[in-house]
Amino acid sequence: MSFTLHGIPVSRGIAIGRAYLIAPAALDVDHYLVEPNQVEAEVRRFCAAQDVVQHELDTLRADLPPDAPSEMGAFLNVHTLILRDAMLAEASVELIRTRRYNAEWALTEQLQLLGRVFDDVEDEYLRERKADIEQVVERVLKALAGAPVVAGELGAACADEEMIVVAHDIAPADMLQFKSQTFRAFVTDLGGRTSHTAIVARSLGIPAAVGVQQASALIRQNDLIIVDGDRGIVIVDPAPIVLEEYSYRQSEKALEQRKLQRLKFAPAQTVDGTAIALCANIELPEDAAAAVAAGAVGVGLFRTEFLFMNLGNHMPGEDEQFDAYRRAVDGMGGHPVTIRTIDVGADKPLDYRDESRDGYEVAPNPALGLRAIRYSLSEPQMFLTQLRAILRASSLGPIKILIPMLAHAREIDQTLDLIAEAKRQCDEAGHAYDRNIKVGAMIEIPAAAIALPMFLNRLDFLSIGTNDLIQYTLAIDRADNAVAHLYDPLHPAVLHLISHTLREAKRAGVPVSVCGEMAGDPALTRLLLGMGLTEFSMHPSQLLEVKQEVLRAHIPTVERHVQDVLAAYEPNELQAALRRLERC
Amino acid sequence: MSFTLHGIPVSRGIAIGRAYLIAPAALDVDHYLVEPNQVEAEVRRFCAAQDVVQHELDTLRADLPPDAPSEMGAFLNVHTLILRDAMLAEASVELIRTRRYNAEWALTEQLQLLGRVFDDVEDEYLRERKADIEQVVERVLKALAGAPVVAGELGAACADEEMIVVAHDIAPADMLQFKSQTFRAFVTDLGGRTSHTAIVARSLGIPAAVGVQQASALIRQNDLIIVDGDRGIVIVDPAPIVLEEYSYRQSEKALEQRKLQRLKFAPAQTVDGTAIALCANIELPEDAAAAVAAGAVGVGLFRTEFLFMNLGNHMPGEDEQFDAYRRAVDGMGGHPVTIRTIDVGADKPLDYRDESRDGYEVAPNPALGLRAIRYSLSEPQMFLTQLRAILRASSLGPIKILIPMLAHAREIDQTLDLIAEAKRQCDEAGHAYDRNIKVGAMIEIPAAAIALPMFLNRLDFLSIGTNDLIQYTLAIDRADNAVAHLYDPLHPAVLHLISHTLREAKRAGVPVSVCGEMAGDPALTRLLLGMGLTEFSMHPSQLLEVKQEVLRAHIPTVERHVQDVLAAYEPNELQAALRRLERC
Repeated sequence: MSFTLHGIPVSRGIAIGRAYLIAPAALDVDHYLVEPNQVEAEVRRFCAAQDVVQHELDTLRADLPPDAPSEMGAFLNVHTLILRDAMLAEASVELIRTRRYNAEWALTEQLQLLGRVFDDVEDEYLRERKADIEQVVERVLKALAGAPVVAGELGAACADEEMIVVAHDIAPADMLQFKSQTFRAFVTDLGGRTSHTAIVARSLGIPAAVGVQQASALIRQNDLIIVDGDRGIVIVDPAPIVLEEYSYRQSEKALEQRKLQRLKFAPAQTVDGTAIALCANIELPEDAAAAVAAGAVGVGLFRTEFLFMNLGNHMPGEDEQFDAYRRAVDGMGGHPVTIRTIDVGADKPLDYRDESRDGYEVAPNPALGLRAIRYSLSEPQMFLTQLRAILRASSLGPIKILIPMLAHAREIDQTLDLIAEAKRQCDEAGHAYDRNIKVGAMIEIPAAAIALPMFLNRLDFLSIGTNDLIQYTLAIDRADNAVAHLYDPLHPAVLHLISHTLREAKRAGVPVSVCGEMAGDPALTRLLLGMGLTEFSMHPSQLLEVKQEVLRAHIPTVERHVQDVLAAYEPNELQAALRRLERC
Repeated sequence: MSFTLHGIPVSRGIAIGRAYLIAPAALDVDHYLVEPNQVEAEVRRFCAAQDVVQHELDTLRADLPPDAPSEMGAFLNVHTLILRDAMLAEASVELIRTRRYNAEWALTEQLQLLGRVFDDVEDEYLRERKADIEQVVERVLKALAGAPVVAGELGAACADEEMIVVAHDIAPADMLQFKSQTFRAFVTDLGGRTSHTAIVARSLGIPAAVGVQQASALIRQNDLIIVDGDRGIVIVDPAPIVLEEYSYRQSEKALEQRKLQRLKFAPAQTVDGTAIALCANIELPEDAAAAVAAGAVGVGLFRTEFLFMNLGNHMPGEDEQFDAYRRAVDGMGGHPVTIRTIDVGADKPLDYRDESRDGYEVAPNPALGLRAIRYSLSEPQMFLTQLRAILRASSLGPIKILIPMLAHAREIDQTLDLIAEAKRQCDEAGHAYDRNIKVGAMIEIPAAAIALPMFLNRLDFLSIGTNDLIQYTLAIDRADNAVAHLYDPLHPAVLHLISHTLREAKRAGVPVSVCGEMAGDPALTRLLLGMGLTEFSMHPSQLLEVKQEVLRAHIPTVERHVQDVLAAYEPNELQAALRRLERC
């Protein structure tokens, strides 16, 4: 019987194939108190299981094929660090010793505790890292149970079929075991836009739907399924007519993709001849390759959180950071790289300094708390280290510094003072750097967009972060399922703040770009062009589709329709104006 | 040796007197596993302690003097409900039975769990209710220890001295024991603007400083102390010259208070003859008396959360709510009462429906989650019950309905549809109501202030909630100590949103008031008058000081200076413009 499951679309495209199910590991383990004289034996049992998993991760890393996406290696490193992390390893041993919990209980207890910390983390990417901890714990539990740790090899029988992985969740180590197989898509019960599965699927260019609740329970091994990565749906056992339609759409898409590839070297220019800069958002230095391959003329947003996260339980030093920034600059081969200083909160478990449980003071509303530049200003030594690393890399290629979450004049002034201080420190240490390095601000808090003169008077460029700007303007956390439906990039207030920012920055002669998700949505390209945007930054995979829209747009015509959009406050008028814009 | 302690100013005025210390109860109790055959005896020990506390609370309530502030009775009711609540009582018994925890351990374990739930609550008032749970637990622990439950009587020796209570925290039951004594001020280590101590101090009209960390440890019994409730500071063992200055300021203030009292019946009118409506914010029907006594011409904001909270573990029925709204209308003697529908979140423990721990799904950012109207729209039966109760009360006196946290056109439409539905239900039930009842919206989300036409086209009046508007505009949770210093009512973006809302509403002929804390700050009265505000709503205790400012203001002059304030984006220019406004 045919049925359809709904999830979150995280990697575009259509795949048709047979389901290959991966069984979830059971976290449901026995809890018991060990006898006092067995405590040390239990500790040894725990450590032995840890060693088994360590060995497995080492083997996987050693066997990493040269063409594996760079994310996979990074994830394996994170898992190794988690395995040895004090919050998990030492604290579990402590629970065994002080409370006589059995190893499984101690481990799942710590998992719960850490899970709660992560649930409260504001940053969506970091919140997804909870899954990493769960996956490591699963591996240790399997080792404790004496089960074979490495998942079974894939059935060779279906090797020539087109296969689609269906799983509760996919650990990066699992993915590496797929290396000899070609999978057409991923479907998982769990996950969000920034889960491993999503990131790896996008880097492999295959469709994926995550958060498809119950998928691994409802889909049977070898079921014929269609994954629509554009809409996040999975059609199980499709009717022949549906199958036919999707086969047709699939070939259309393939054709379109080939057409898009031809645009790679075309200059991004509108019909009326306006040059548009299309840049890439990247998370790792290695992503620069994909950015260049997609025809990006620069990196509009290099998120540096990932570097900090990858290192697990210590803050990266100046040299480590310098090396990462240098590699990004090298990778972009002369195109400018805009590096955003760290955007994490004090409440998230990035800095494992204090290893006691009480070390985590979780903010009641992390999104409205000590995060991004607020956090950096409260930790000047950490911030100066990052600034020096960026400055040193600026001697090797064009770099700009982008500051997140600024809202107050005095925050901007403090930040500029610290940049001046970092320059002085570089001078003292004899490091070369770009003395005219440009400093810009994210416009992502309503106050920043409204009180723009404060920013225009102090900074070299601006970058609108639409994700957060929408979140605060509407008072909606889009990661909160209860209200995610109220998150609306087309709310008149959002459109007004973006339009106002573009107009005022242009008038003041300050360059401005958009680097939030709106910039990568081809359905919104005309709207942004009509508001006066000439610099977009997005995930490399979205670049060619947006370029296609740019090549088709005639700015003076689009501008007239955008004026109608901005004048509309009533939903029906707004919809009508948007439809006219789409057709113009 | 003289020294000064800093806390949060929660009730204005100056007091000079001797410290009367109340020792904090120890929550630091022994944890041990009871023998299997002692489990039921331990359960009985727990229940007996619970009964002792129950008896004590009953006695206190029975002895409540007729002139005790109404809040005290309400708090005692809350304590009784907490004592018997399943999350505390049944769950503790469960822990004794399943884990063999001793009663003290079980109780403190549940306290911790509940504490975490409360920490995540967005609403500041509800978050403070964590202290109630702690106080109830303390009482039960004392009973378990066999200590006398009722705190010792006050030393009669100091009866004719002016005494100031200094405590770690003050439970309402403790306050009742002070009834025979006159205290001049309260000082506590814990607490915030909405803690008991703060609420009761304001209702008694005595100064209080809360959150004065370490006060109860550093101040000794009988120390001479000065409490400056305007600035939230406590000066211990003051130098003679400081004492003299404060004595002088105290007498000046007393004089000023007497002068202010004379303004009670004066119409609030500016020098140029503009009539200004000064209304009160209330939390309980009984507060209406204080509002009328302060000369309020209406209730601009009746927060209904308190009614829901007072009932502890069940949602109040239509008749209970009707009775509360009716009493507020009666209390205001013909002046209009603006009732705001419930402003709580789905994540807070108001509705104890699901008594399992998993019943609480805490939102990652409650302030950006399912709260206020979003919550009401997701629970239409609860919302319709409240609407029917309000409609029925509207047949007895002038009532307006105020909706919190609206941001989208479709939310407004859904709300108006539900109000129409509630009217239909009242018609069917034969209940009378005001068929022309006015419906208004809080403007407290940036999107609402920016996309104002959506609101002006649909609603009868608006009320600017400055507290939340500032919070979202600046992306600052002011209850989060790490960033509270960035909360700034005078940020240019905040001033622009308020000014824009007042101007556009006026142009559209829609009445608009301000009911956030800015309305009650006499230092900001001129600023708001100059932006065109003619209706203020504030805590009754602030009303006469604001009226004094109104009586001194000349609108055309003030308006000119406010234009300068709004044109200033640079901090120094803004400060200068504000100083000129102050002096004009």
